[in-house]
Amino acid sequence: MAAVGVLGGTGPLGRGLGLRLALAGHDVSLGSRSAERGEQAAAELREAHEGLAISGAGNDEVVASADLVLVCVPYDGLDDTVTPLAEALAGRIVCSCVNALAFDDGGPVPVAVPEGSAAQRCQRLLPQARMVAAFHHVSAVTLCDASQTLDGDVLVLGDDEEACGRVAELAADIPRLRAVRGGPLRLSGPVEELTAVLIAINQRYRTHAGVTLTGVAEPSA
Amino acid sequence: MAAVGVLGGTGPLGRGLGLRLALAGHDVSLGSRSAERGEQAAAELREAHEGLAISGAGNDEVVASADLVLVCVPYDGLDDTVTPLAEALAGRIVCSCVNALAFDDGGPVPVAVPEGSAAQRCQRLLPQARMVAAFHHVSAVTLCDASQTLDGDVLVLGDDEEACGRVAELAADIPRLRAVRGGPLRLSGPVEELTAVLIAINQRYRTHAGVTLTGVAEPSA
Repeated sequence: MAAVGVLGGTGPLGRGLGLRLALAGHDVSLGSRSAERGEQAAAELREAHEGLAISGAGNDEVVASADLVLVCVPYDGLDDTVTPLAEALAGRIVCSCVNALAFDDGGPVPVAVPEGSAAQRCQRLLPQARMVAAFHHVSAVTLCDASQTLDGDVLVLGDDEEACGRVAELAADIPRLRAVRGGPLRLSGPVEELTAVLIAINQRYRTHAGVTLTGVAEPSA
Repeated sequence: MAAVGVLGGTGPLGRGLGLRLALAGHDVSLGSRSAERGEQAAAELREAHEGLAISGAGNDEVVASADLVLVCVPYDGLDDTVTPLAEALAGRIVCSCVNALAFDDGGPVPVAVPEGSAAQRCQRLLPQARMVAAFHHVSAVTLCDASQTLDGDVLVLGDDEEACGRVAELAADIPRLRAVRGGPLRLSGPVEELTAVLIAINQRYRTHAGVTLTGVAEPSA
């Protein structure tokens, strides 16, 4: 079991992933800019789920004790959150779950990221981190409600084979999620941007859509 | 049943889609820059599948008689193919199946398209066409082999509701494919670019991967 730190652990995605990973037996710590809000989010989850191994703290503290760090902040908070942690995250496995999206009258739309994707930007801000991109298409709403069954594949992308494998294992530890290796980090842009399409589908079909790959035989990788 | 014209009808995707739509009872015409090569591709399919309603011709002729036109040319042939047809395609339903992809030492990679996607570029080149984007993720290899079962969803994107509906019907006429409406044309970029991720998955898992949306209840739309 891994010690998982979640940056942006008080938002819906961070809290939902933290909950599911803690339910799967991992030791999760929800990070926030304010240690108090991190601890409060964790306390709420412990109250709802007796015996859950989940704590909360400030981002610095969360990162210090984690084997693996998930970045779950909104895109416009990415730079401010990770830049001060560059030294602490050197050599560590960091998984960006960030979707760079905006909304206008036409609905959801990807934000152009100079580096190509939020994960690639995260890698530039954390040049020595072992960067992975994953968990873009799981519904935060569904993750946060432990009574709901998840469904779909988690595309895992990155250039560090071992780091990708660790994140894939983590994803596969959540019941009914399957990890599929989606290629190098430079292909993370289309994966992140597809989230805008999923939101458009959610709006049209009034659902929380996910993605499954057909024709991929291995249960996980 | 519709009269379907296929630009790029001699390539694997055009030939495969043409075959499957003809097998579904549509009247298909495979277009090529050379009328002779279009007719030859159709003759080969008629020989392999007795009674198939498929013909071939030059692009001009194919477009003139079609209710609906599929654009299946490689991205680097898009401009030369569609630009001369702008007048003929005014007011017509045109479905771009084009993926703007390149390959280098790192594998498949999306090509940056100034308009955002190949479909959006196609719309700029054919300003009066009723533009739709679809069929990006179906495997050309699988389409071309009628003994193989297809599997997966066809994401259909566009700003013209009725045109999208016609293309969705066409997709749903192919056994075991389901059409899912994926939003406006401006979201076609991520859908096209995801094809690079599918190719990376194909290389890793030695398969022909497709995409299915989970949580979308309607069988077609």
